[in-house]
Amino acid sequence: MGGQGDVTVLGTVVSPFALRVRMALYLKGVSYEYLEQNVFDKGELLVASNPVHKKVPVLIHGGKPVCESVAIVQYVDEFWTGAEFPSILPADPYDRAVARFWAAYVDDKLVAAVLGILRAATQEERDKKVEAAHAVVAPMEEAFATCSKGKAFFSGGDSVGYLDLALGCHLFWLETLRSMFGVNVIDAGRTPQLAAWAERFLETKAAKAVAPPANSMEEYAGKLRAIWAAAAAAK
Amino acid sequence: MGGQGDVTVLGTVVSPFALRVRMALYLKGVSYEYLEQNVFDKGELLVASNPVHKKVPVLIHGGKPVCESVAIVQYVDEFWTGAEFPSILPADPYDRAVARFWAAYVDDKLVAAVLGILRAATQEERDKKVEAAHAVVAPMEEAFATCSKGKAFFSGGDSVGYLDLALGCHLFWLETLRSMFGVNVIDAGRTPQLAAWAERFLETKAAKAVAPPANSMEEYAGKLRAIWAAAAAAK
Repeated sequence: MGGQGDVTVLGTVVSPFALRVRMALYLKGVSYEYLEQNVFDKGELLVASNPVHKKVPVLIHGGKPVCESVAIVQYVDEFWTGAEFPSILPADPYDRAVARFWAAYVDDKLVAAVLGILRAATQEERDKKVEAAHAVVAPMEEAFATCSKGKAFFSGGDSVGYLDLALGCHLFWLETLRSMFGVNVIDAGRTPQLAAWAERFLETKAAKAVAPPANSMEEYAGKLRAIWAAAAAAK
Repeated sequence: MGGQGDVTVLGTVVSPFALRVRMALYLKGVSYEYLEQNVFDKGELLVASNPVHKKVPVLIHGGKPVCESVAIVQYVDEFWTGAEFPSILPADPYDRAVARFWAAYVDDKLVAAVLGILRAATQEERDKKVEAAHAVVAPMEEAFATCSKGKAFFSGGDSVGYLDLALGCHLFWLETLRSMFGVNVIDAGRTPQLAAWAERFLETKAAKAVAPPANSMEEYAGKLRAIWAAAAAAK
């Protein structure tokens, strides 16, 4: 694709925020070099590209780094514009505001809820954290359905957009919680519309293109839980 | 101004996020009805307009609510477009990404630092929190100066933009910390460029238009500190 410059993504296969960025690039049809990072031993390029947070994802475009997935996805949408590039954010200002509101909600509340479940040391604690997660998800059911306007995706259309990416990138971790603990955060009984959307989302080419390797999230979760357990034992 | 619909802002005079929204509307020249809210006894309109967070600010435009100041400011910028409305976000996608990155940094790190200073119960604790705040501000000095491109404001021009609003809305609280505790979070000795910018920002018409009434922040801070002290005593 002419004139787009070199595109590199620094990510990890288990970072939902890196998956979000990679799905955005996939939607735009932008090819990129992907460099898997070790978050337990951060490389020079990561530290130099994101000196403030030293976190993935980082998009490096034409030598210039862009950090924070929300800023990156909007950058991708605003740089690769025109008839050949599908829009990620909705066209209408109000729809954009609603999508940004709920995307922020997901990153604030849902991420905390997922980490709470992952970190729980006992079954009793986990049950409480799952209950808290269901309370976080509940208001999304009708709100997100409203965004979809009767179409397949929260973009209000038949292909995924900003809010789909915002929530969709976390589905891989929700699947991991199910496989590790038998927990359903998005539950077909409680939030049937979200559950049906999640099935559709995971079947999209964008989701399949970035799906983490089998067991990579379970292995990463195991490392995290060992670190947390050691820290708790040392107190 | 024709066709803009009714515009209402739900805010408090001490909320930096509400001040940010009102400054954005001021920059656009959009008139609005302002409804001061009581955060200690939330009104029906606030709860109905922002049922998820029940927080100010809310912009109600043509009967439809927009919540979260970051989403609201971008909505204001995207709805009121055209030659008669100055742009709030930079035009260049990369500059926009940088502005969004640092605006998120301010809301995440600086707000926590300000609250830490405000909440400190002893002088020793406050000194530590001021040190932490200086560490938060330090990386902003060169980064924000780069955004200004030799011009007066972080917009890269002679009038304020997105990143100016993002940081500028917090200056009133920084002034309050100075008057209450003699604390300089943005200190001319440590971060001279930020300090000079802050002086310029507070002299803008947008800042003067929304400046909180004298002592309103000190009084609000006093209430918060009393609530925190009572909570600590009850433990």
